[in-house]
Amino acid sequence: MGSTANGSCAPTEGVAAAGATVDKEVDFANYFCTYAFLYHQKEMLADRVRMDAYFNAVFQNKHHFKGKVVLDVGTGSGILAIWCAQAGARRVYAVEATNMAVHARELAKGNDVGDIVEVIQGSMEEVVLPEKVDVIISEWMGYFLLRESMFDSVICARDRWLKPDGVMYPSHAQMWMAPIRSGIGEKKENDLESAMSDWNNFVEDTESYYGVNMNVLTKQFREEHEKYYLKTSLWCNLHPEQIVGAPVVIKQIDCLTATVDEIRTVSSKFSSSIYVDRTRLSALAGWFDVHFRGNPQNPALNEIELTTAPSVENSTHWGQQVFLLQPALRVNEGDVFETSFSMHRSKENHRLMNVDLTYELKLASGNQVPPCSSKTVASTVKAALLRSIECEMCVHACICLDCECLLECEQLLSKGEGILAGDQAARKIAYHTVKPQAAAS
Amino acid sequence: MGSTANGSCAPTEGVAAAGATVDKEVDFANYFCTYAFLYHQKEMLADRVRMDAYFNAVFQNKHHFKGKVVLDVGTGSGILAIWCAQAGARRVYAVEATNMAVHARELAKGNDVGDIVEVIQGSMEEVVLPEKVDVIISEWMGYFLLRESMFDSVICARDRWLKPDGVMYPSHAQMWMAPIRSGIGEKKENDLESAMSDWNNFVEDTESYYGVNMNVLTKQFREEHEKYYLKTSLWCNLHPEQIVGAPVVIKQIDCLTATVDEIRTVSSKFSSSIYVDRTRLSALAGWFDVHFRGNPQNPALNEIELTTAPSVENSTHWGQQVFLLQPALRVNEGDVFETSFSMHRSKENHRLMNVDLTYELKLASGNQVPPCSSKTVASTVKAALLRSIECEMCVHACICLDCECLLECEQLLSKGEGILAGDQAARKIAYHTVKPQAAAS
Repeated sequence: MGSTANGSCAPTEGVAAAGATVDKEVDFANYFCTYAFLYHQKEMLADRVRMDAYFNAVFQNKHHFKGKVVLDVGTGSGILAIWCAQAGARRVYAVEATNMAVHARELAKGNDVGDIVEVIQGSMEEVVLPEKVDVIISEWMGYFLLRESMFDSVICARDRWLKPDGVMYPSHAQMWMAPIRSGIGEKKENDLESAMSDWNNFVEDTESYYGVNMNVLTKQFREEHEKYYLKTSLWCNLHPEQIVGAPVVIKQIDCLTATVDEIRTVSSKFSSSIYVDRTRLSALAGWFDVHFRGNPQNPALNEIELTTAPSVENSTHWGQQVFLLQPALRVNEGDVFETSFSMHRSKENHRLMNVDLTYELKLASGNQVPPCSSKTVASTVKAALLRSIECEMCVHACICLDCECLLECEQLLSKGEGILAGDQAARKIAYHTVKPQAAAS
Repeated sequence: MGSTANGSCAPTEGVAAAGATVDKEVDFANYFCTYAFLYHQKEMLADRVRMDAYFNAVFQNKHHFKGKVVLDVGTGSGILAIWCAQAGARRVYAVEATNMAVHARELAKGNDVGDIVEVIQGSMEEVVLPEKVDVIISEWMGYFLLRESMFDSVICARDRWLKPDGVMYPSHAQMWMAPIRSGIGEKKENDLESAMSDWNNFVEDTESYYGVNMNVLTKQFREEHEKYYLKTSLWCNLHPEQIVGAPVVIKQIDCLTATVDEIRTVSSKFSSSIYVDRTRLSALAGWFDVHFRGNPQNPALNEIELTTAPSVENSTHWGQQVFLLQPALRVNEGDVFETSFSMHRSKENHRLMNVDLTYELKLASGNQVPPCSSKTVASTVKAALLRSIECEMCVHACICLDCECLLECEQLLSKGEGILAGDQAARKIAYHTVKPQAAAS
């Protein structure tokens, strides 16, 4: 369950070292509390792609549920538990840490499965169930899969309560990464420069009016803001056309056998071949998918996949996580982007992740290292708001006046003026009408 | 120091009962953490009204500081401590709970007072000072004065470390309330109805697509959203003309003698005489002022006041807190608005406040109880964006198209078309040009 949560605060050093028990109240203040609100539950319940996947996974595989005992880890509103009951389960234990459990109980009762669904309020690590279970179902995935570290609780539940031949819903998970182009990096750089410009004025004023020199803190202020604007991953809802190189699987998880140690860190060295010519590599994007395949002895009859890959029609509330590269790179088809990616839990808050990222661009043979191109302004450009597709560097130096990014004119114009295939009225994806100009040097 | 903080989460029942010690890490996650960011410190340092008041209080009363020992409670960036040193203090102990203390130390050093200002990182309740102090200075005020309950720490400091004849900076504080008119109540009601309308669609969809009836939770969803939109006080930057009745002091604090018990609850029964005719009473607004008067044996030579009352030119980052009345009341000059107001600390988070409010409108003799007036739409209205002044109910049933509020036509038109007296270019207060129409029934 992706959540913005209140996760940006870091307690004082020395607290909650890796492996130590996390204080329950701190965990509540930092993490659980948002899930107690119906507002937040509804956001997830209104995610049709998410809902469809779990709904189909359950109802197209009733053999896994009929007459069986199920555990729903982190039941929230109770929706998964209710579906399991409707699919024929004889008992569903629905565990929820927050007061949302009260609503889940009412929802189960109001949907005539109150005799089957037993809602238990408590933490999965502490509750005691009357019996072991045939199926563990849970929607535990955070941004880029592992943010929130909720899978720890699912592993705990599995190790304590799943029968030897039991089934996990979902059964498998994968993490993907790909190089992308995006105008968002420049926006963030501009935001940073704005903040520094504002700071500089503030330093001047504070000296003039109050006789205190704040310049001593300029470096620290810049560091704090660089971290905030450029070194914090961003939630984005990417268009598939922003992917400029082959997506790569960087982590695979078998939910039946994974251990907490295996998921504590995600490390991957990978290469991605650039497949768009003359474009810009602004960032690495990360997303995940999960699969409902049952287990080898008791497989699904209908395998369902829930993917959060960039999509025009099937975006989810998880979006994708974007890790900006500084500076962006000019790339060509055939270049190879090599990354060493390492993600591990924050010492201060195990539910948040820190990422280290190094990379190298290997050019297709014969190409020069592309120079950094400065933006140029086209004199006559009619711009309309372009959603979903971030502007990319334009071969012909055209500019989108709305976002001041350069446009990939050839790419857009080749689709003709009008509406993109697969466009949805609700999205209102529109075109820029641009006049190509000779590329500036 | 007013702060939005991350204060909207409530931990599970039974935690941190009134009077019990608050867990340090929970307090950090809920409260302290935002103060560790320079971004947040700068917001307060850029509040000119706040800065001017403390600056003037110190430098126009150097006799309180020259050769004296000072304690700055919650020094943040260290600004107050530095001023005290510059004003002649021989020693300043600057206590700060967060890692901001590191920056404060650098700032003091970079302003050549590192030998006078000793920054101590720790909580005021725990640190041990080498000696008692002549002055305690602190900027501890939260929204509506007491939000954040930081004054507890100042009282603790005073009781432990202030010499018998010592001085408090500030020395006094007052809380004010007044009835106001504002369009914000209607905006929030509209937001609520939007949320409910969206919920209703969601309930339909969830039943159709997923066979689960969410209507069981409609009442709870509405309650949660009513609380969020209508029963949570709002930060506003009010225009003085929004005050429709005489402001009243509801609490007075002598910082030299106040106890925690005295400030734990604010209770007041008060009356406010309405002094604007034919207008709407939408809410109660609360704000505060603090004073730097020294103490009776050692008074200030120049008394300084820091007020957060509604002001065109001297607004502060504290704004005012607005408590919506449901429904808004039609009032006339001479009516008397009687309120019973009670504010006490939340059991779950002592830094947040819960408010109970009952009220009664006593009409000036001879007037009928004004009926609720429904909005009517004027057919020809040319509207421009009106900042600062929220639209009020219009006698002549004119409407502002920008905010869909009814306008107090007579009030605006009586000023003539053009710019309000005291208008500031930066604020761009503009007028509606309206055509009055006969009031609809």
